[in-house]
Amino acid sequence: MPEPKKLIVNLFEMNTPGHISHGLWRLPENNRERFNDLDYWVELAQLLEHGGFDGIFLADVVGAYDVFRGGIETALREGVQIPGNDPLLVVPAMAAVTKRLGFGVTFSTTYEPPFAFARRMSTLDHLTKGRVGWNIVTSYLPNAAQNFGLDGEIPKDRRYAMADEYLDVLYKLWEGSWDDDAVVVDRERGVYTDPSKVRYIDHVGETFRVKGPHLSQPSPQRTPVLYQATGSPAGMAMAGKHAEVVFTGGRTLEDFQRNARAMQDAAVQQGRAADDLKFIVQAGVIVGRTEDEAADKLRATRELRSVEGILAHLSVPVDLLAYPRETPMADVTAETGFTLPFAAPTVGETVDRIVESREDRFFVAGTPSVVADEIETWLDVAGIDGINLRQYHSFGTARDFAELVMPELRRRGRLREDGEPTTLRERLFGRGDRLPDGHWGARYRGGAHLG
Amino acid sequence: MPEPKKLIVNLFEMNTPGHISHGLWRLPENNRERFNDLDYWVELAQLLEHGGFDGIFLADVVGAYDVFRGGIETALREGVQIPGNDPLLVVPAMAAVTKRLGFGVTFSTTYEPPFAFARRMSTLDHLTKGRVGWNIVTSYLPNAAQNFGLDGEIPKDRRYAMADEYLDVLYKLWEGSWDDDAVVVDRERGVYTDPSKVRYIDHVGETFRVKGPHLSQPSPQRTPVLYQATGSPAGMAMAGKHAEVVFTGGRTLEDFQRNARAMQDAAVQQGRAADDLKFIVQAGVIVGRTEDEAADKLRATRELRSVEGILAHLSVPVDLLAYPRETPMADVTAETGFTLPFAAPTVGETVDRIVESREDRFFVAGTPSVVADEIETWLDVAGIDGINLRQYHSFGTARDFAELVMPELRRRGRLREDGEPTTLRERLFGRGDRLPDGHWGARYRGGAHLG
Repeated sequence: MPEPKKLIVNLFEMNTPGHISHGLWRLPENNRERFNDLDYWVELAQLLEHGGFDGIFLADVVGAYDVFRGGIETALREGVQIPGNDPLLVVPAMAAVTKRLGFGVTFSTTYEPPFAFARRMSTLDHLTKGRVGWNIVTSYLPNAAQNFGLDGEIPKDRRYAMADEYLDVLYKLWEGSWDDDAVVVDRERGVYTDPSKVRYIDHVGETFRVKGPHLSQPSPQRTPVLYQATGSPAGMAMAGKHAEVVFTGGRTLEDFQRNARAMQDAAVQQGRAADDLKFIVQAGVIVGRTEDEAADKLRATRELRSVEGILAHLSVPVDLLAYPRETPMADVTAETGFTLPFAAPTVGETVDRIVESREDRFFVAGTPSVVADEIETWLDVAGIDGINLRQYHSFGTARDFAELVMPELRRRGRLREDGEPTTLRERLFGRGDRLPDGHWGARYRGGAHLG
Repeated sequence: MPEPKKLIVNLFEMNTPGHISHGLWRLPENNRERFNDLDYWVELAQLLEHGGFDGIFLADVVGAYDVFRGGIETALREGVQIPGNDPLLVVPAMAAVTKRLGFGVTFSTTYEPPFAFARRMSTLDHLTKGRVGWNIVTSYLPNAAQNFGLDGEIPKDRRYAMADEYLDVLYKLWEGSWDDDAVVVDRERGVYTDPSKVRYIDHVGETFRVKGPHLSQPSPQRTPVLYQATGSPAGMAMAGKHAEVVFTGGRTLEDFQRNARAMQDAAVQQGRAADDLKFIVQAGVIVGRTEDEAADKLRATRELRSVEGILAHLSVPVDLLAYPRETPMADVTAETGFTLPFAAPTVGETVDRIVESREDRFFVAGTPSVVADEIETWLDVAGIDGINLRQYHSFGTARDFAELVMPELRRRGRLREDGEPTTLRERLFGRGDRLPDGHWGARYRGGAHLG
């Protein structure tokens, strides 16, 4: 019998009180308002590592949600990703108290120079001993653009072209600028680094000019594990070229399978292997020792769910909550000029549909064995490799999963065994610390293709 | 009798093996090659806090020294500030194991957007519970400019004008965007933040356009303690407006006193008080239990001192080491076209003068009481407020100072007593956590002067 497929288990987090489960900061004993404190992250990291999680995945935005109702008021009142802090800076403290936990951080290629970001990630990869991943995003909020000197968003095609060049600069710095044996620390001869093994990158492209050399010496993984969240055609092409772990979705199982296949095809066209990509999905899991306990927890999350928070997060341009539920959507469109992709016949049904759309395709509430059954179906039938566990309650969601679900998954042989600590890439793929040879970034090794 | 003036004690560090004591990474048991490891920083922070240090001050550059001998070879071989990592990312791990130690980090206003930096510093101020300071620099390396898309350095006047506007953006975000009581976390009413107490900054200036609002809620200090290193006239004017702690020098005691007075005058002209500024100097201290022990340590540092490293660090445009020592400097100038500010009659004397110039004006080698006497002279006669202790050996320099000098200074009443942990600003000035009212940045409080 072949060994059962292993699950990648990430907690989905953000350095803010309200990430995607809007309104739930109000749950009793939810401790999200502690996100400004180092202790919050230290305790969480210890809980996750002790519980056997593979990683923590930190989302980020660099602007506020100020489209709904024409302002930031709703986002502020509901705590929709504001206040919020930098995601990279909580990693070193979590790294100090763990040995195996991986750290996926989100950073946008659109607004900040690649040279400084390359050094930040190399620093994190050194400090974590190779446990860092990067979730590549290009940013989409109008307010984010306005925080970085622009009038509004850069069109998506242009953002993706910039991202592709941005990645090229990073690969040159991470993979091409220093040889593995450049740093010798030879006290006798007085040679810290062998100068013949370090080089300028001399990148001159459409958007960026970067001379180098990279300032950091090679870190355990060099290039961090590359994550990308996508489902769009442009995103799929980019994932085929760059991504190692794709955070993807789809309204149906077939959607998901079609997306995954398209990205694997794109990868193969780029000279990569289909299994160079792993797929993770966002998962909503509510677990109880009994069905009743799970049902109670589910009820509590539904009662406090903030519809306004959801509409603000989605930047819905019309205040649907200002109309009686039975108002025909045609009237709203006539009045405001907006059509909504989610429109149903009435305002009430449209709101319900929007709220429903924010639920996870992978959702299960039940006892540990019911949850584990659902996870196995996703692994073996849908073909996913892992999950980003949505937090309803902090640390309750993570603790429940660690205490109730993980032992059941371990019994079923679905978890990676904890041997010696490794890099994140080795943990996820089991094929070494570095980018595989067929990856685009690997072409710069030894200084090839520079200048 | 009035209470004796207290000394601010910082360790001067950098996330790199060779900061300013070039060649000394070769000293036996110097552990600087561990700078990539989290443990290096955790152990160092514990040593400093236990020893009673007020802070650790981290220098930074965002380029390589590649002028001397027309390339980066010397800097690499001698380990002159390369390899090097990001300074901000080691702070959270040090903060996790300390309660009182302050963290001064260096960041340049020239190459990266203010919005993202504002959030990073607010994040650090939250995570450290208000123990962070920022060393404002504008960068000077040609290679740094080339790493950020430019052909070469931006002229100094322009860099300073940019820095002044950069600071304005930061003050608006840090001081003006959120009121202290904006975050309420009212579970009952479902209000996380009171929207009436948060505002856009709508900054439109010559170089920057930033809408805001700030993403981080107010941190303990809001604006980190502002450090600046300067002696130049333009720098002094800037320090008079912005700096709270000035890292300054001068070849003579009179130089130092004149600089300090000029900056205090500039501060008063800006509506600040003369004692809103504190002055720290770089200090070289070699201490032994006996005079002989100190002399032995001094000899070891002199023997391994790297002249090539010093010339590379200073970006000396002529390879003086390629000439016999007795060569007249006039011949070198005739051959190369360069004149050096440090020129002496011969090449050998010029090199000696350059090396000598890199020694600290505040330098003492001796027993603890000799060192303490010298420190007291600087405090009481020269009028300094503190020191940035140069590292010859890591952790040896810090450990010697902690074990031998600090007890002597404590006996003499020259150290701040460790009471309850406070913010860095309160520790240094004893007048609260926030910028004083007369500071330029305070004008944006409550949203005044925005837009």
